[in-house]
Parts: sequence; structure tokens; C-alpha cells
Amino acid sequence: MEKRIRLGLMGGGLSSFIGIVHRIAAYMGENYTLVGGVFDIDHAKGNEFATQLGLDLSRSYDTIDYFIQQENQLPVDQRIQVVSILTPNFLHYEMAKKLVSAGFHVICEKPITVTVSEALDLQVLVQKYQVVFALTHTYTGYPMVRQMKEMIANGVIGRIQKVDAQYYQGWINPFIHDEEKRKGVWRLNPKMSGQSCCMGDIGVHAFNLIEYTTGLEVDKVLADLDTMYPDNPLDVDGSTLLRMKNGSKGIIRASQIATGEENNIIIAVYGEKGALKWEQEHPMYLKHLQEDQPAQIYKPGNGYNSAFAQESTKIAPGHPEGLFDAMGNIYKGVAQAINGKETRSGSFPTVNDGVRGMQFIEAVLSSSSQGQKWVQI
Amino acid sequence: MEKRIRLGLMGGGLSSFIGIVHRIAAYMGENYTLVGGVFDIDHAKGNEFATQLGLDLSRSYDTIDYFIQQENQLPVDQRIQVVSILTPNFLHYEMAKKLVSAGFHVICEKPITVTVSEALDLQVLVQKYQVVFALTHTYTGYPMVRQMKEMIANGVIGRIQKVDAQYYQGWINPFIHDEEKRKGVWRLNPKMSGQSCCMGDIGVHAFNLIEYTTGLEVDKVLADLDTMYPDNPLDVDGSTLLRMKNGSKGIIRASQIATGEENNIIIAVYGEKGALKWEQEHPMYLKHLQEDQPAQIYKPGNGYNSAFAQESTKIAPGHPEGLFDAMGNIYKGVAQAINGKETRSGSFPTVNDGVRGMQFIEAVLSSSSQGQKWVQI
Amino acid sequence: MEKRIRLGLMGGGLSSFIGIVHRIAAYMGENYTLVGGVFDIDHAKGNEFATQLGLDLSRSYDTIDYFIQQENQLPVDQRIQVVSILTPNFLHYEMAKKLVSAGFHVICEKPITVTVSEALDLQVLVQKYQVVFALTHTYTGYPMVRQMKEMIANGVIGRIQKVDAQYYQGWINPFIHDEEKRKGVWRLNPKMSGQSCCMGDIGVHAFNLIEYTTGLEVDKVLADLDTMYPDNPLDVDGSTLLRMKNGSKGIIRASQIATGEENNIIIAVYGEKGALKWEQEHPMYLKHLQEDQPAQIYKPGNGYNSAFAQESTKIAPGHPEGLFDAMGNIYKGVAQAINGKETRSGSFPTVNDGVRGMQFIEAVLSSSSQGQKWVQI
Amino acid sequence: MEKRIRLGLMGGGLSSFIGIVHRIAAYMGENYTLVGGVFDIDHAKGNEFATQLGLDLSRSYDTIDYFIQQENQLPVDQRIQVVSILTPNFLHYEMAKKLVSAGFHVICEKPITVTVSEALDLQVLVQKYQVVFALTHTYTGYPMVRQMKEMIANGVIGRIQKVDAQYYQGWINPFIHDEEKRKGVWRLNPKMSGQSCCMGDIGVHAFNLIEYTTGLEVDKVLADLDTMYPDNPLDVDGSTLLRMKNGSKGIIRASQIATGEENNIIIAVYGEKGALKWEQEHPMYLKHLQEDQPAQIYKPGNGYNSAFAQESTKIAPGHPEGLFDAMGNIYKGVAQAINGKETRSGSFPTVNDGVRGMQFIEAVLSSSSQGQKWVQI
Repeated sequence: MEKRIRLGLMGGGLSSFIGIVHRIAAYMGENYTLVGGVFDIDHAKGNEFATQLGLDLSRSYDTIDYFIQQENQLPVDQRIQVVSILTPNFLHYEMAKKLVSAGFHVICEKPITVTVSEALDLQVLVQKYQVVFALTHTYTGYPMVRQMKEMIANGVIGRIQKVDAQYYQGWINPFIHDEEKRKGVWRLNPKMSGQSCCMGDIGVHAFNLIEYTTGLEVDKVLADLDTMYPDNPLDVDGSTLLRMKNGSKGIIRASQIATGEENNIIIAVYGEKGALKWEQEHPMYLKHLQEDQPAQIYKPGNGYNSAFAQESTKIAPGHPEGLFDAMGNIYKGVAQAINGKETRSGSFPTVNDGVRGMQFIEAVLSSSSQGQKWVQI
Repeated sequence: MEKRIRLGLMGGGLSSFIGIVHRIAAYMGENYTLVGGVFDIDHAKGNEFATQLGLDLSRSYDTIDYFIQQENQLPVDQRIQVVSILTPNFLHYEMAKKLVSAGFHVICEKPITVTVSEALDLQVLVQKYQVVFALTHTYTGYPMVRQMKEMIANGVIGRIQKVDAQYYQGWINPFIHDEEKRKGVWRLNPKMSGQSCCMGDIGVHAFNLIEYTTGLEVDKVLADLDTMYPDNPLDVDGSTLLRMKNGSKGIIRASQIATGEENNIIIAVYGEKGALKWEQEHPMYLKHLQEDQPAQIYKPGNGYNSAFAQESTKIAPGHPEGLFDAMGNIYKGVAQAINGKETRSGSFPTVNDGVRGMQFIEAVLSSSSQGQKWVQI
Repeated sequence: MEKRIRLGLMGGGLSSFIGIVHRIAAYMGENYTLVGGVFDIDHAKGNEFATQLGLDLSRSYDTIDYFIQQENQLPVDQRIQVVSILTPNFLHYEMAKKLVSAGFHVICEKPITVTVSEALDLQVLVQKYQVVFALTHTYTGYPMVRQMKEMIANGVIGRIQKVDAQYYQGWINPFIHDEEKRKGVWRLNPKMSGQSCCMGDIGVHAFNLIEYTTGLEVDKVLADLDTMYPDNPLDVDGSTLLRMKNGSKGIIRASQIATGEENNIIIAVYGEKGALKWEQEHPMYLKHLQEDQPAQIYKPGNGYNSAFAQESTKIAPGHPEGLFDAMGNIYKGVAQAINGKETRSGSFPTVNDGVRGMQFIEAVLSSSSQGQKWVQI
Repeated sequence: MEKRIRLGLMGGGLSSFIGIVHRIAAYMGENYTLVGGVFDIDHAKGNEFATQLGLDLSRSYDTIDYFIQQENQLPVDQRIQVVSILTPNFLHYEMAKKLVSAGFHVICEKPITVTVSEALDLQVLVQKYQVVFALTHTYTGYPMVRQMKEMIANGVIGRIQKVDAQYYQGWINPFIHDEEKRKGVWRLNPKMSGQSCCMGDIGVHAFNLIEYTTGLEVDKVLADLDTMYPDNPLDVDGSTLLRMKNGSKGIIRASQIATGEENNIIIAVYGEKGALKWEQEHPMYLKHLQEDQPAQIYKPGNGYNSAFAQESTKIAPGHPEGLFDAMGNIYKGVAQAINGKETRSGSFPTVNDGVRGMQFIEAVLSSSSQGQKWVQI
């Protein structure tokens, strides 16, 4: 019998939007048990949450330091093995550092940190302590994104000559035009959010999707960010030109003031022999364009997909799966890694993806602040 | 603290397609604990499954009778409260009858039974024993189906004058044309499947969606079923004309030989003031047609939806949810009912929906076998 | 040099909705010249129209008899060669009969006549006088409908086992619920419209699309028509079960009270080896479903299409063509036939399609009035 | 009676792709008569074309100079009034200059010229000679593009804060990777095509759509063009960042190496109060996004559209119109202007749009050649 992996949480309690996504993702594969954590900055609320979930209150801690101290005194077969970090961005680094250094595996919400140097530091620690470290770029968990990755890797569209990714939302529009309202948005507060809002929160997802699906690295960026108002310190919109290391060009467009857009992520990759296109709001469809051939629509659950895509769906074709299922696939990959199984490349984003993402964000900010210069990643 | 509901399963083990859907649905709301059951007709396999899930083997039973006997000897606060029946169709009735009569709440896969009289019998028992009985017409759990129901109830499209539902699959096509192959399909075996294959398995979903969303009852049916080959005893395709009790007309089309279709369910309801249309393979979109107005597209998670639809989604707009989430919503409704909370109408299909469905199936079979006569439901 | 074909019109003047479609269709191929006709029941208005178009007023006639008399006195190389009949339905037969008998080629709006016997009569006359007779089932002119026909003929989807066609409009809804208003609608007046409104006007298009694309004939029908109100003599909605001559089953659904629908025509044909689906409101896309293969999307202008489909588009891929272009393709086929060139099967619907359509309409009416009996076509 | 406008052509004969679009557009409104022109650089071929169309051969000229001389000797009421210039790009300026200076109205294919200074020169001449000058940015003729323009002008989406336009094709991909093949493509030859291939041919359409729909002017551009191979002199792909004069930002993406794309034009405009989105390959649909409201889909032919959009469609809702119809709307606008009628703003693109387009192209080339600097238009 495969024993269940004992899971802990930092944050993710009652008031967390993302908490439910992680918890369900963990339950989906039936290989995690949620055991404890620091569920809330307010310990009473954390305990309330633990009680609601029927957890042992002795595992509901008030600080990460106490969490580490106590858990590490437990026998190995009772101790929490992996911790998901779901707190606001600025806490990711410190928590991850402590956990990794104490030997815990980590699943971290993105952005991994708020600076490149912090991310590089974590990269070193992960290597040193030999723990599993996953970064939840959730969209990489969709079966059709994985199919796209595999088709590109197998040369289906040939050498890549153009990449184009979009991440458009409109949710900041109702706040941005009113000074009082925008001050109430934590993502627009550099102390909570880090150096970037739009690029750090969503542009980096587009960046990650490009590197994930193409297997190529972005070499240089030239970015034009928009804060909309002089007293708003963080970007809410931006376009970034890309040069890929293989010499091809590309573009990332991201916005949080694309009024009326919900979570409109699109990636299109064009190669010498064809193209692949995917949209997050229609995640069950992968479009394959070929010259002089009818376009093809790939859907999950079918035998024509790669083994990796096949393993990333749980039901028969024609039954939609969504965001929770995508996150579930990432948790599944992490579980395999923790259990010492060989995992497919791309089963979950790693600390390396985190470093790349932070390098992207800093390069973009640097480019834009210099008046749109090319900046090496 | 709300204690977790103790869940048992009949079937749903290793070899079950639908088992994973139910288990994840139960986990999603964080208010069920899977405790035990009769997981497989082969007890050893059932135990293997229990072991995999880390369940207490003493709760992995070999027969339903033993399950009932043993569980009922446990203290009330340890005893399994609700049992999901996930076995082949022909076992539903017997199991449900025993469980209901022993005071267990029941979540039953459809079709509820294989005859109307069995379904009526269960209806009486559910009333007598005052248990919660849910039938998993999963599609009623989608937020946009619930929004459709509420908009119609609120008169948004006025008096209904036409209903049109489709459920097209192609999965039987590869078997049906070869005598040997089709004999290997359990759904084509009346002993396992009951009186009908296509109408009983999927036509009844379309029927249920019509009654669920419109709040109208079908009065009469005229059906033309197709078995494709004389030696194939069960229908694999059929069209059914409908007369609704409000006098309007309608149609249900179902097929399992619509080659290449996966799970293509569509419902369109036309009223004097507008229309609503929904497709299962694009479950996040509800189309509202109005005369002299642009068509409108409703999406989950937005404040313009009804409270019921709002409660049926777990995340912000633009993040797809799928079949597991729909089933999760049904389990959530059942949990509320078991916990004695008031539930919204439509929170889960009940034994009454089961009776209606069986009446529909028998009426359809009767109509078709008489050479397409109108038959009262 | 190919001389232009001299075209005449019956109706199609200022107040005609369909006139502009025919005239532009004739201009598109640059092989017709509009010369004269009886443009309006009111001769003054007819002349006004002729003047607007810069036509020779001597060719603007007040009656069809005078038209025929005068034109036949002109030298053969000046005489109008083909006449398009665009008048209300009840006039089609009389006009077509006179024109055919006088040796004119005819392009006739559908329905060809108001009874089967009239249609059969025309069929005899067309044979006798050896004229070209085209019936404008316009949707057969779309390149992707032609591609569908050719793919089926070439066995791409194998033996057909299910056909499903829909034609949903909502335009009668604003009139039907008010007695005064519905009396003002000419299509609901049997004297103008013939025996059927919905089936005669649009159901017959769906029927024609089925026979056109599949090459199969409908054998029997069972129809359930709806007039909505007892004092409304003609159907405004109806579903018709089909038995094809090859033994397969099918269905036609048509409605003019599908509130909010514009011109929503869909045809889906399922065979043993795959399926083809097309929608009129997205005419540039033909969907090809195959088992264990990604769905394919065919688009006009590409070299992978059949020669017939290729010839039916005028521009490079990705440039939409629409209804005018579809009608233009039919006029192009007629021009080829008039000029004595060999035409591809399906280049334009003929008097035989007209007979089939009328037989369908009468069979449907008969079936419905008998309380849904099977009626042979 | 409105007399028909006498139309001449430069180019547009047998071997012309675009000729058929212009001729049908002229026929559609029934207010032009094609009279003559210089149909081909090879006079024999030009005459062959004239013969095919049944034109008077005396009006099939061998040079533009002879055309002008001869036409101007004809009585005013026989003389060609307007000339469409459909030749390769490098001839546009010279021909337009001669025609305008000789008092002819002109309809010119884009790009208007190959340099800004030529375009400015034409602008002066058009003003001086008081002729009508139309530039065929065909996409502005689609009814839903016009509806978009009017909704924005009426403040429906509020102040614009982001514009995003794409024009992706793949047709150069099969040529670009082979040195011999790419040398055979006239659009890649600067002598024929001018200074730019991708931006000049299609990027400028995206630019025009932005200025047309928003009513805003682009202020500055920063462009990254791609020629793919060092020995290929002209761009085949490029992304251009925009600064609008109202301070908002935007982006134009264009490619001819987006393998498998046909004519994928998309425009999205985001304002404070909502967004409008349109795609050329689905031209009948205009999407209107609003916060806290279901998205709306506008379609042509409906009374809820603006008068301008209404006038730009010829048939009832639900009947697709396409590219020919869009061009027809531009010809219709030109006819109104020639006949001295007041025309709506946006009825046809003018010489001013031509100047703007050339300024855009030159600014883009300048920006890219300087290594992505901001360049004022």
C-alpha cells in the first residue's frame, strides 16, 4: 500500500481564495491527507478552520517556526511531509526558505518570491536539502497544455518561429479610476505584492506557458508597462516583446484593465510545419493548424493523445474538467516525486521555473523603466 | 463544528469509471469522510481498494447484507450515514431498497431502477423511512444549468412554447457493427442494463434536464428507437416527440451511434419572451436569446447570476469548472439535507426524479414497440 | 467570347426581400444581363424599378402573358433566355408552367408549387420542353455544403446511419400570440403561402439539405406540427421523424417560434466511419468527426477540398463569403447548363428537387393531420 | 432616376485576385456600370478580358495616358467617372496622381502609395481637384465593424484605455524557408511591394481598423519586425507597441509566417465602461463585454444596431454576408459621394486614411531599423 502523503498548509484558511483550489487538488488523487499548518495569520481563525475540517487542533500552529519545531519532533511517519505555501506574495520566500531548510517538501503559490536573488537562494537550498519543490503554475496541469508541450517536443510543428501569449483580465478596472478604491487593493500595494502587479501576477503565467509548452527559453525582453495613474506604483497592463534563444520572436500581452475580460489566457505557437493554439476558458480544446490540411481539434481522454496528456485526465472524452483538475494534476506529480517515483518532465513546475519567472519579472520592469530597452533575462 | 458525514459505497472501486467522480465530489465540499462499503463484487479487490485508500479494512464488507448488519451495530456517531450506489443498473433497486429500509440515506447512480414499479416502491420507502435519497443526474449540478432553471422559474423567457434536448454520443459505433463485439458490451445486455440502452442511459438525462430546467412535466411521448441490428435487443439511438403538460411541444434526440460525438448534450428552451441554450461540452456558457436584443452569454461566478448559481461555483469568473464540480454540487446539496438544513429546490435530484425517469423510459419503449404511438407518462 | 445570358424576372422588384439576392447572384458571375420582366404586380412600380436599374422600359411588362408574347417576337439573340420567378408561392406554378411551355429556362424560388401534382406537372413539362429549370435551395450553393456532399459521396464517413437537420427561426413569435397581428402575416395565409408555413418555407430546406448532402432519399415521415392557436391554419413549428431508403433513421426539426433564433440551420450526418456537421450561420466551417482522431475543420479556398467546392469559392482562404455568394454559385451552375456545358451533379437544385420537396410537405401534413402516422413520400 | 456611375479599372483583369472583389462590389449596389480601363499590362490580355465581360473594346486602353486622353474627349455623360486602381503597389501613386489631376474620382487599393511623401502629395491633389478618393480598407465595410465604430463614438465603452489588433496569416511560410522560392514572391520584392511586406500589406489594415473604430489617432510606435532570413529584404512578421494620442496604450501584431492561419484579423478595444471585440473570420458577430453584465453578441440586420450598421447589410438577420458585401458597402459609400449625397463618416476610407497608413508604415520601419525606438507618426 502506498501511504498517503501528510500535507500541511501555510495560509489557505477561511479567507483564502486559492486555499480551496489546493485542498481539492490534494484530495483528488486520494494520496494526500491534510494534517495541519498555520492556516491564518489570526490563530483563532486558523483554529476555527481546523475545527471545521475536523483536523487535530494540536496540528494547527500559530507560527511557521513553531510548526517546524513541533513537526520535527514527531516520528517520521507522522510528521507532515509537504507544505503548501498560500500566503500573500511577500511571505513566500521566508517561509519556503525555512521549510526547505528544515527538510520539508514545498508546494508554493507563484510568484515564488519577490526578487530574483531570493529565488536563486531557494534554488540553492532545494538542491542542498534535496526536497521536492513545486510552483503552482496551474495552467500547466491542463491535459491539453501537456499535449501541446509533447507535440512540440515531438517536432509536430517543426522549428518554432513565433510565439504569442495573452493573459487578459478586467478585474482592476473598477478600482483603478478611483484613488481611494485603488489604495484598498492589496495587489496594488508593493509591500504585499512585490515589484509588479500585472506582470508578476499574470504576465508571468503567460511567460511560463511559453517556456513550458515550447521548451525554449526567452532570451531578452522589451516591455511597455502601464500603471494608468502616476500615483499608482504598480503596473496593471503591459506588452512585452520577446526574443527567444532559438532566435525566434514573440510577444506577451497581459492586462488587468481589459474591462470585461475574466481569465482570458491564450497561447499560440507557430512553427515551420504548423501551429498549436489553446485558450484557458475553453481548456478542453487544442487547435492544431497545418498548411494544406484541415485544422484539427484535440480533446482530452482520447487515445490519440500522448501518454502524459492521457494520464492527466480522469474521465472519458466529452466530460469537461477544469481548474481544480489542472491543479490536481500538479499535486499528483508532486506526490509521485515525493514517493520517489520517476515523474515525466513537466509533471509540475519547479524552483527553476520560479527563478525563470522572477528573472522575467525583473527584466520586464527594468526594460519598461528604462523606456523600453531590450533587457537580457 | 459541523461533523463530517460518514459515506459508504456500493461498488465504485478499482474498476469503476464513475467511482472516481463520486469520491472526488464527496471530497470537494470537505464535509464527507469515506468510511467503508462493498467496493467490489470480488471482495479481495474491494479490500485492495480499501487498502489503497487507507481505509479501515473492517469497514470493507463483502455483501450489502453484512454491511447493513455490521454498520447498524455501530454507535450512531460512527455508523455510515449515507451510501452511494455505483453498481451496474440491475442492482440499484435491491440495494437501495435494503439501505433505505435500514435507515441509510442513499445517493444512487441513474437509472434509479430498471422498472417503474421498482422506482415507485422506492418512492414509498423513502417517504416511509424519511431518508435523503439523491439520484445523480450530474448535469443538474452545473452552475449554468441551475442559472437556467432559475431564470425560467423567474419568468425571464415567459411561457415556454418549445423544448429541444439532445444527447449524442458515438461510443457504441465501434461495437455495434460486429456481432461478437456488441455481445461484449454490458450496456447492450438487458440483464445488466435493463430494458433500454440509449434512452435508459442518456435519453433519460435529456428528459431530466428538460423537467429540471423548465419545471414542466412531460405529458406524452412518441418514440422511434433504433437497435440497428435485429439481434441487438436494446436501442442505441432514438428520437422522442414530447407533449408537455402546459400544451407545448418538444423533442428529445439521443444516440450512441452518432459517430465521433463524445458527450454532446444540448438543451434549448424557447419561451414567448426569449430562449435559453446550454451545451455540456461548453458548460461555462449559458446563452440567452431575446427578440430585438443582442444575445447574452452568462458565465459562472458573476454577481448577475442567481444565488443558487452563485453558490454552485467555487472560484472567480473565468476559471473553468467541470463534471467533478457539478457532481460536487450535488453532494453538497445532499450534505445540507442530511444535516437538516433547508436546501434550495433543485439542489439534488430526488427519488421523484427517479420515478419520472423510469416512467419516461417505459413510455418511450412502449411507444416505439407499438410503432410510434403516443404514450402517456 | 461567351455572350451574357439575358435574364428576366417575375417579381423581385422594389418591395422584394429576395430580389436583391437573385440580382446580385446573377451579377456575381459576370455572365448574366438583367434585361426585363414583370417586376411588380403594380406596373407603375415595376417601371419605377426598371428605371432605377437603367433598364429599357419596353422590357418592363405588366403581365407574364404579355412578357411571353413580346419576348418571343424578338430575335433569338435578343430574347430573354431565363426567367427567375420571385413572386409569392401561390404564383410559382402558373408562371413556371407558362414560361417552360414557351421555351424559357426558369430559376424558381422555393417552394416550387403549392401541391405535389403541380410539381409533377412541371417535371413533365421541363422534360418535354428541354429547358433548364433550377430551384433555389440556396444553401446548396455554400462551398462547404458542396464539400460535405462530395465527401459523403466518396465514402469518407461510410454508410450513413443517422441524419439530423434543424432549421430554427423565431420571427413569427412576435405575431403569433396576437390574433390581429398574425392575420397580417402573409406566410400564415394559406391563399398566399400554400398548405404549410413552417414546413413549406423552411422545413423543406432542411429536407433538401439532407437529400442533397447524403444522396439518400427519405422514404417515410412521421410529423408533429404545431399551429400554436386553433384559429391559426398553418404550422409554425414541427418535428418530423424520418426513415431513409437505406434503412437509417433521421429527424428534421423546424420552427418559426424558436424565439430569438435568426436563421439557425444545422445539418449533421453520421456514418459508420465518421460524421460531418455544418451550420449556416458559420458557413465557412465544415466539421468532420472521426473515431480516435481529432476532429477536423474544413474551410473554403483550400486545396484539400474537392474540385466542386473549390470552384464554389471566389477568393483566398480566410475571407468569408455568405448567402449572396451561395446563390451566386447556383446562378453560375445554371449559366453553365444554359450554355450547354456539362455541369457537376449538385450545381443547382432541379425540378426533381422541387417534386421531392412538395412530396415531403404533403406527406408531413398528412402525417400530422392523422395524429402522427408514418406516411410514405 | 439615378444614372449609373461609369466605372473604369486600372488592372483587375484576368490574372487579378482582387479584381473580382471590386467588380462584384460595384455590381452589388446596382449603381455602377463597368465601362473600360487598362485591364492588364499586356493589352491583348486586357482586350480578352474586356471581350469576356462584353465591354466595348474601344474602352479597353493600353496605357493610362491614352485612357485619360481618350476618356476626356468623350462627352461628360459618357466619360468614365471613377477609376479603381488595382495594380501592384508601386504603380498606385503615379496612376492616382494622373487620374486625380485629370478630374477622375479614384478608388485605390491599399497601400495608397509606397512613401509618405507620395501620399501627402495625393492628399493635396485630391483637395485641389475636389474629387472623391477612396482607399479600400475593406474590413471597414463590415456592418459589425461599423457598429463597433458607432458604439465607441457614442461612448458605450467609455474612455478607451487599451487597444489590441492582430492580423495573422501563414501564406509566406511555404516560401520563406527556401531561397529560390522566396525570390519568386512579388510581395517580398521591394520594387513591387514597397518598403514593407507584412506591415505594409496587413499591419496597416490593423492600424486602420484601430483608428477607424476608435476615432483615436496613434501617436507613437515601437516596432520589432522580422525578416526571418538576412537576405530577405522585407518584413514578414512584426509586433508594434502603440501610444495613442489620448494617452492609452495598444499593440498591433501582424504576421505572414503564422503557419496555418488564413486571414485571422482580430480587434479588441477596452474602455472604462466595457469592451468590444470583433474577428474577421466570424464577421457577423460583435462581442460587447461589460462589467457585472453578461457579454452581449451583436449581429447584423437587427434593429438594435445603429442606422449606419443597418444600412450596411442587405438581408434579414441570420444570413451571412462576407468580404464581397463589405467591399460593396465601400463602393456604395463612394457612389453616394460621387452623386453629391451626404455620406456618413466612415462610409469609405479616404486619402487621409492613406496618409495615416503610410506614416504608420514608415514610422514602424524606422523604429525597427533603429533597434526598437519610439517613433512619432
